[in-house]
Amino acid sequence: MEAKRIAAEKAAAYVQDNMVVGLGTGSTAYWAIEYLGKRVSEGLNIRAIATSFQSEEQARKLGIPIVQFADIEQIDITIDGADEVDEQFNLIKGGGGALLREKIVAAASKQMIVIVDESKLVGTLGKFPLPVEIVKFGFEMTMKKLGKLGCELRLRMKDNEVYLTDNGNYIVDCHFGSITEPERLHQLINLIPGVVDNGLFINMTRHVIAGYRSGNIEELVKKDT
Amino acid sequence: MEAKRIAAEKAAAYVQDNMVVGLGTGSTAYWAIEYLGKRVSEGLNIRAIATSFQSEEQARKLGIPIVQFADIEQIDITIDGADEVDEQFNLIKGGGGALLREKIVAAASKQMIVIVDESKLVGTLGKFPLPVEIVKFGFEMTMKKLGKLGCELRLRMKDNEVYLTDNGNYIVDCHFGSITEPERLHQLINLIPGVVDNGLFINMTRHVIAGYRSGNIEELVKKDT
Repeated sequence: MEAKRIAAEKAAAYVQDNMVVGLGTGSTAYWAIEYLGKRVSEGLNIRAIATSFQSEEQARKLGIPIVQFADIEQIDITIDGADEVDEQFNLIKGGGGALLREKIVAAASKQMIVIVDESKLVGTLGKFPLPVEIVKFGFEMTMKKLGKLGCELRLRMKDNEVYLTDNGNYIVDCHFGSITEPERLHQLINLIPGVVDNGLFINMTRHVIAGYRSGNIEELVKKDT
Repeated sequence: MEAKRIAAEKAAAYVQDNMVVGLGTGSTAYWAIEYLGKRVSEGLNIRAIATSFQSEEQARKLGIPIVQFADIEQIDITIDGADEVDEQFNLIKGGGGALLREKIVAAASKQMIVIVDESKLVGTLGKFPLPVEIVKFGFEMTMKKLGKLGCELRLRMKDNEVYLTDNGNYIVDCHFGSITEPERLHQLINLIPGVVDNGLFINMTRHVIAGYRSGNIEELVKKDT
C-alpha cells in the first residue's frame, strides 16, 4: 500500500496549473486522485477527465472539476496504474475492467505517467492474464478465435453474472504465460472481429514511477531512440 | 430492384439441407431471406443466424428457425450484400449500419456469398463512405484520429439523433474517395483506440454474384492463389 502511495504522490507532483489531467482507475490511480484533490484544495487549477464512473465520483467528491472530451482539445498528462510493465515500457492494463477508456484517454494525452509498486515490474509480460474487451454479439465465436492464439481464457464474471464494462461489453481474461512479441499480439487480437480492444499498451508511456516497500522511489524515463 | 432479386435467388440456391446459414442485412440480403423462406416452406431444413434485429424478424415471419451462437459450432454459408466490391473481392459494407455483426458472422462462416447489383462493382474502393463503428466514450477524439488518416468524415445521424448500432455504438462515415491499400487502411483504423471495427471486409469472400439490369447474372469466383 505504502509503495503505491509514494509513487502516486510523486506522479501528482508533475501536474501543473491549467493542465487537463486524465485520471486512471484502480488502487494505485486512487491514490493519485487523492493527492490531486489535496493539491486542488490548496489552490491548484486543473480540469480532469476520468476513465471510469468510479474515478469520476472520487474526483468530484474531492472538488476536482470534471470535463468531457467535447470540452477540450487534448489531455496534457494522464496518470494511471498498470498490472505489468516490461523493460520496453509496454504495459498490461485492465485488471480493473476499464482498459478501453484508459486507452482512449492515454491515446489522447501528450504524456502518460504510469505508477506501480515494485511487484508490477517484469522482464516479460504475460503472467498477468491479458484482458480483452469484446462485444456481446457472437462472444462464443470471438472467444474461440482468441483461444487459437495460444492462451487459456475465461469470460470475466462478477457476483455470478457476466461482468459488463462501462461500455456494455464483456471482458475475456487471456492467460498467455509469456508474451514475447507484445506489439504483434496486440495487432492480431485487435483484428479479430468482435474484439473492441485489449489491455496491451504499446509505446504509450515514456515515464514509469515505481514505489518500493522500502519507501524508495524509482523513476524510469524512456530514452529517445 | 430486379438485379438484386436475381442475384439473391441464385445465392439462395446454394443453401443445402441441414446447413447453418448466416443472414445478412440490407435491401439485397432482404431478397435472399425471402427466397430462403420460400425454400423452407417447401421443406428445406436449415437453421439461421441473423446479423440484425431486422433480418431476424423477417426470417421468423417466414418460418426460418433462428439459432444463437451458443447453439452452433460454425456457420456453413453466409449470404450478404455489399456497398462496394473491388476486383480483389475486397468489400465495403455497413451502409445499413450492421457492419460489426455482419463481420462477426462472416468470420465465423466457412463460405460467404456476396450478392450485389452491377452498380456495386468497382475498380477501387472508396467512393462509398467507409462506415467505422466507434464507442461513445471519447468519440470526439476518435473522430479526430480517423480524420488524420485523410478522409472527410461525419457522425451518422438518424431523425436528428446520433445513430446507434445494435451494439450501442456510433457510426462515423469516412469519405476517402479512393482506397488504394484497403488491407493496410483496415489495420490502421482498427488499431485506433475507440474503434470497434470498420466496414472493410478483406479476404472474407471468394464468391460474388452480380445481377444486371438486363436480367443477366455474373458469378465471380476467386481462384486459389
